[in-house]
Amino acid sequence: MFIGAQVSLYPMTSDFVRIILSGLDALAPYRDDLRIETDDISTLMVGAPAPLFDAIRDLFARSAADPAHVTMHATISRGCPGEPDDPTCRCDVLATVAQTTSLAERQAQAEAAVRTAPVLGVEIDLQFSLYVLGQDGHMDEIYGCIDFLKASGTFLRSKNFCTRLHGDAGPVFETLRQAFLRFGPAEGHVTIDMTASANSPSAR
Amino acid sequence: MFIGAQVSLYPMTSDFVRIILSGLDALAPYRDDLRIETDDISTLMVGAPAPLFDAIRDLFARSAADPAHVTMHATISRGCPGEPDDPTCRCDVLATVAQTTSLAERQAQAEAAVRTAPVLGVEIDLQFSLYVLGQDGHMDEIYGCIDFLKASGTFLRSKNFCTRLHGDAGPVFETLRQAFLRFGPAEGHVTIDMTASANSPSAR
Repeated sequence: MFIGAQVSLYPMTSDFVRIILSGLDALAPYRDDLRIETDDISTLMVGAPAPLFDAIRDLFARSAADPAHVTMHATISRGCPGEPDDPTCRCDVLATVAQTTSLAERQAQAEAAVRTAPVLGVEIDLQFSLYVLGQDGHMDEIYGCIDFLKASGTFLRSKNFCTRLHGDAGPVFETLRQAFLRFGPAEGHVTIDMTASANSPSAR
Repeated sequence: MFIGAQVSLYPMTSDFVRIILSGLDALAPYRDDLRIETDDISTLMVGAPAPLFDAIRDLFARSAADPAHVTMHATISRGCPGEPDDPTCRCDVLATVAQTTSLAERQAQAEAAVRTAPVLGVEIDLQFSLYVLGQDGHMDEIYGCIDFLKASGTFLRSKNFCTRLHGDAGPVFETLRQAFLRFGPAEGHVTIDMTASANSPSAR
């Protein structure tokens, strides 16, 4: 399986280069576990979901600690049939647990993971869409995921095409990782389109 | 069918509010044809693909005319089974042509539409992912779309999880609209995850 993301950070300040470079510093602990390549639009990160979502979370949490309004977008993918198999992307949750468990059990496992997520002390807003590709009946998994989101403690509201989360960056990004890992077939093609926001001057 | 987008504009300048408000002015000609609602993360636009993609294009082209680095993200969707039918979203291409034409014919129609797109005089970069949901064999339509992209005149390069386009905003956004309309089943659930960029200080 191939797992990774294209990630872009957008500080809404003329000092944006400094904040982006400071955010990229937060990726240092993950550079051994992830392949990271940056171009002018986005940073590719390839690797297992454990370091991948931690790195995305820390990149944004570091940037959101600055008072400037900052947003981040990520296109996250697992199991795309057009990508090569990559052993560094191996994930025990996908390889074992998710194969054999019912939707209700997966929802309970996802909720438990969010409850034990670290708290980083950075409040964020986030909205995302989960796409389950290559199979009929994809909406059953989507609706099952939405039920988990509503019970996650990070749910803010439903919007057209996506779901809003709010809270500390730790549980919010754990909610995102659980949605990615526990819903849709373990060996299937699943993607996320995600936008995070912090320090916005607009009312929520 | 329900068609729409969640769109966010990100000017990388401390003067970002002015550029966002100026960009929103570019939506004025489309407010009769689209339902437009803004919150602190994104602007919802609901309506047929003709005004929808023109509005997204003009919002970004207006903002990119400013010298500041600016990016835009859009989550675009048609046919989501979780959304209500909306008669304002009716599209002749989806209702008639796309139902009865082969992949090769659709590729030719898409290329012709890009060739006759208006030129706006604003150079942009864009990358996007096309998702065909709710059916087996979704990659056949994706690969068919990628062949169209390579012949479109706006193709820059393939990346993991997405395709890069470059050129004038007119043909680039027409390429995006054609990918959305001509690939995947006409009555099916198709989405796009898109990022546009202009005036970046980084090398392409």
